[in-house]
Amino acid sequence: MSVRLGGNILVTGSNRGIGLELVKQLLDNTGQEDHIYACCREPEGAGAEVRLSTPPQVTIVQLDTSDEDSVTAAVQVVGERVTASGLNLLINNAAINKPASPALLSATSKADMMEVFETNVAGPFLLAKFHLLFCFCGQMSCRRSAIINMSTLVSSIEKCPQNFHIVQMYPYRTSKAALNMLTRCLAEDFRKHSILVTGVHPGWVITDMGGKEAPMTPQQSVLGMLSMMSSLSDKDSGKLVDWMGNQIPW
Amino acid sequence: MSVRLGGNILVTGSNRGIGLELVKQLLDNTGQEDHIYACCREPEGAGAEVRLSTPPQVTIVQLDTSDEDSVTAAVQVVGERVTASGLNLLINNAAINKPASPALLSATSKADMMEVFETNVAGPFLLAKFHLLFCFCGQMSCRRSAIINMSTLVSSIEKCPQNFHIVQMYPYRTSKAALNMLTRCLAEDFRKHSILVTGVHPGWVITDMGGKEAPMTPQQSVLGMLSMMSSLSDKDSGKLVDWMGNQIPW
Repeated sequence: MSVRLGGNILVTGSNRGIGLELVKQLLDNTGQEDHIYACCREPEGAGAEVRLSTPPQVTIVQLDTSDEDSVTAAVQVVGERVTASGLNLLINNAAINKPASPALLSATSKADMMEVFETNVAGPFLLAKFHLLFCFCGQMSCRRSAIINMSTLVSSIEKCPQNFHIVQMYPYRTSKAALNMLTRCLAEDFRKHSILVTGVHPGWVITDMGGKEAPMTPQQSVLGMLSMMSSLSDKDSGKLVDWMGNQIPW
Repeated sequence: MSVRLGGNILVTGSNRGIGLELVKQLLDNTGQEDHIYACCREPEGAGAEVRLSTPPQVTIVQLDTSDEDSVTAAVQVVGERVTASGLNLLINNAAINKPASPALLSATSKADMMEVFETNVAGPFLLAKFHLLFCFCGQMSCRRSAIINMSTLVSSIEKCPQNFHIVQMYPYRTSKAALNMLTRCLAEDFRKHSILVTGVHPGWVITDMGGKEAPMTPQQSVLGMLSMMSSLSDKDSGKLVDWMGNQIPW
């Protein structure tokens, strides 16, 4: 079991930041026989470089991970194309953070908790279920299939005291801890199908969410992550690692 | 900072199982000057022993932790009574588990994920916010105030591979991992107010949720938990411990 950065790849949240950069670098690293499904809430707003050039290896798909109907519709679009070969790599990258930083407890509502959980956990949960269906429907062996759940350093309950007073973010933190549990459960559940499931911390990156003072560009982060992903093996399923492959405690 | 099992105590999910037993044993251990707010979704269904005898130290309060209006109404009822002295102990015990065991992935819907998170995480989140308000509104020192979040062994992401194939329960596991993060965040956040926040695993107990084959009665579990709680101190805030005080990894 290892991760092949080729075949049919689905990336959520691909209209900007890390998701867009993932699509761009995956394009550089894959061939004519590979295909990337770049999913985003607003396809019209999708990164101009990808959307305007519309390379034949990329299909832009409308997908709002918080909307079950949207997930089902996107899965149908992708499913019709990948039936014969299945999906090789699902990158659950789409995520939201509410309320705006520093997101103190007093400023955080129940609605924030629910909305962030819906996008950051229920969305990846649904896509993982569909990923398994693709494997069964396709004729492919799932031996080289993987799910990458984009997590974060602040998902670590262990490390919370080290960074809580810099960023509080109750909804984001609780959702990402739940996502780590999802990663761990799926890794156990899908081991019999040889599907690898790993959580990844991309580092602190200059994006709309990461802010301008972050020390790393999306290019640097994605370069590290793709290199790290291609070397993941059986023993890394069910773990949380950073863009350089260092394990992060739960 | 230590936990005093007296003063004003609020217990959620107190109509049966561990919650009901908590109310009964707290009653045995507290005096005339103490008061227990036994909160439950259906007060008419509240444990007959407590409801019919209606001891003066107990007030039964309608509270559905998944319903924000119900939480607000319950807080108002309790708030009017505790204004002068504040709330000393909040036990977030109410929780649900959907779908029914073994809760395989294929049988689990997005609605299950959302509903379980709402009751098991968003409910305790709201009550913790109100707990802090009570402390500020009251004239009490918060020095002897605490929040206990009822967690579970299967909340441990670390231990997931050891028990996943016995019970899968994606919604329950992800919600309780999120609750552990909430515990850890609140412990950091409320340290400045000297409010202790600890997660507790009650053991595998004979209840509607635990089933009949569990090795422990609610009486045994609660006896252990109350003894353990009364010895909690500063260093235990932000931890997850079992009914005997043994720490559980995240």
